Amino acid sequence: MDILPESIQNLIEELSDLPGIGPKTAERLTFYLLKESPEKRRSLGKAILELTEKVKICSSCYNLTEGDPCAICSNPKRDPSQICVVEEPLDVLALEKIGSYLGLYHVLGGAISPVEGIGPENLKIRELIERIKNNKDKIKEIILATNPNLEGEATAMYLANLIKPYNIKVTRLARGLPTGASLEYADEITLQRALEGRQEY
Amino acid sequence: MDILPESIQNLIEELSDLPGIGPKTAERLTFYLLKESPEKRRSLGKAILELTEKVKICSSCYNLTEGDPCAICSNPKRDPSQICVVEEPLDVLALEKIGSYLGLYHVLGGAISPVEGIGPENLKIRELIERIKNNKDKIKEIILATNPNLEGEATAMYLANLIKPYNIKVTRLARGLPTGASLEYADEITLQRALEGRQEY
Repeated sequence: MDILPESIQNLIEELSDLPGIGPKTAERLTFYLLKESPEKRRSLGKAILELTEKVKICSSCYNLTEGDPCAICSNPKRDPSQICVVEEPLDVLALEKIGSYLGLYHVLGGAISPVEGIGPENLKIRELIERIKNNKDKIKEIILATNPNLEGEATAMYLANLIKPYNIKVTRLARGLPTGASLEYADEITLQRALEGRQEY
Repeated sequence: MDILPESIQNLIEELSDLPGIGPKTAERLTFYLLKESPEKRRSLGKAILELTEKVKICSSCYNLTEGDPCAICSNPKRDPSQICVVEEPLDVLALEKIGSYLGLYHVLGGAISPVEGIGPENLKIRELIERIKNNKDKIKEIILATNPNLEGEATAMYLANLIKPYNIKVTRLARGLPTGASLEYADEITLQRALEGRQEY
């Protein structure tokens, strides 16, 4: 479509590259932005550029942060005896939203996936073990909160074996029926897990 | 969520303001961008900022453009005897995609809508009449291609009455378009049929 001004065409292409945004949505977003005030566009453009300038990775937990160590690692109210291991920064966000976990985190940066060519060496696993070694007296529990899917389970199992020698309690997030779901529609594995993990009333 | 670095929180909020993007999608897009290379982020941010710097409105047809007059108005191969009147720049894009229309455009900037407080004075209607007056000998046909909905029909009718005194043929896109839909989403064949079957108003 060379009929479109280059800067418009350019933004449509940039937006089309984002996940879940097809060419049609990219077009609509671009023309929406064109109807918006220049200030609005400037603030969005700047917000994206600032990510590049400001966001770093915490040298302790590998979560995204502006300062190092991050706000969680440097918060004296957080309990350093618990480390919750997650795959992605978004998982930290999800857990922080419930607000009841007060320990620290460790962000792996993904899960072990031979299919995608992701091995333990591509994740922050060496760094986790290093962190455990250096804080052996402080750490009382490692919570494995990788995703409850094939890759997440494999990663959790791999980590549990690695941590065993340090004699630290290793736990895994409970599996079962999600709240609000109905038994009728639960898949068999979920139902099996819910049954196995049943607790006394 | 003050646990998120400010620049991340900031971008999530900016993205949430876009149409069709809720807070959850904004979060996912932001963290996707964080996983992307800084170059990718820089080019997206710049693409948005460039819209503000580069995009102007064509002083002849009121379409979006980088140069003035726009690429269509200044193309000697386009037929100045036909002017297709549309509501939005996206509509020009939709028509240009079928590639068979070789006349010029006039972008109104919307449709008459008393409910939304948009009257003829808020659209480029005076400019259209001015354009017709100044090119009375050249212009042979005005194609009314406003959307086939209430506001679009009302606008077309209003325009047809205004143009009548100039003794220029006024046509309307054929009703191959499903009523209530918007031009932007029409598939190319439907749009093609509508263009071919246009009838005198």
